Amino acid sequence: MDVRFINPFIAAVKNVFNTMVTTQITVGKPYVINASQEPVADVSAVIGLSGDVVGCVVLSLPMQSAVNAASKFAGMELTPDNPDFADALGELANMVAGQAKSNFTGFNVSISLPSVIIGREHVVSQSRAKPRLALPCESALGTFHVEVVMVVNRPSAKQAPAAATV
Amino acid sequence: MDVRFINPFIAAVKNVFNTMVTTQITVGKPYVINASQEPVADVSAVIGLSGDVVGCVVLSLPMQSAVNAASKFAGMELTPDNPDFADALGELANMVAGQAKSNFTGFNVSISLPSVIIGREHVVSQSRAKPRLALPCESALGTFHVEVVMVVNRPSAKQAPAAATV
Repeated sequence: MDVRFINPFIAAVKNVFNTMVTTQITVGKPYVINASQEPVADVSAVIGLSGDVVGCVVLSLPMQSAVNAASKFAGMELTPDNPDFADALGELANMVAGQAKSNFTGFNVSISLPSVIIGREHVVSQSRAKPRLALPCESALGTFHVEVVMVVNRPSAKQAPAAATV
Repeated sequence: MDVRFINPFIAAVKNVFNTMVTTQITVGKPYVINASQEPVADVSAVIGLSGDVVGCVVLSLPMQSAVNAASKFAGMELTPDNPDFADALGELANMVAGQAKSNFTGFNVSISLPSVIIGREHVVSQSRAKPRLALPCESALGTFHVEVVMVVNRPSAKQAPAAATV
């Protein structure tokens, strides 16, 4: 994955959790996910990226971290059976992806609506042909990961409209 | 959801499964998913949509239907522990979304890479603020659903580039 995209995600996850969840995040060393050892999660918030870059961003959490993050974001206890729980985590993922993409200088990227998956120990797979990066995050809420897959569609198309894919 | 988007999805799922999985699909009456009764799935292939329309497409399957579809698509038995299993279902979802979007006349829409979720009885939630439509599908492979959430960003922007969201 193009290293120019990593720092915007690190900055975005720190800033979003700091401002919206009043929680400091320590981001560990990014690593490439081995497709034969897919990480499991209990809650995943998935955002699609398209335009000059195609890919996905996944906020991937164990249940306790997800409950802690959603509850602190909402200012009230949220359990997974509360519809606000998924909305809260989708909104956090949306803000991380939105802030990161605003710093992809020279690339026109748009983001999809978030999908939030809730289910004990599920796996979120991406195409094995595309390298997938994990940003391990530690915080008082618990550990979680931000996973990013991004492939440049048009590296030289600094002013190209993203519309040409229709 | 804008009804202009429903028929392209019905046509796309029938055509993709007919041509790529040599299976006839009967699509039942579309219905709006009640956010308080989220459907469960064992395998979900999620594609993000963005541009003039933002949203998501989810190919949502029970395990047996997913195994049957992936195996017939690949021409060999594929079980969920085989990395080709997720790739096959992601590719099917990608083709359904790609064919459908090519028929959104006047709208510039681009699609993300697929994410494939594998986990017994997980739930894929979308924002409750956006109506979500389910297309129930029956076939010799088993039953499954195509779920679609789409919100028009720029209804009058027939020639607008999808890039303007950066």
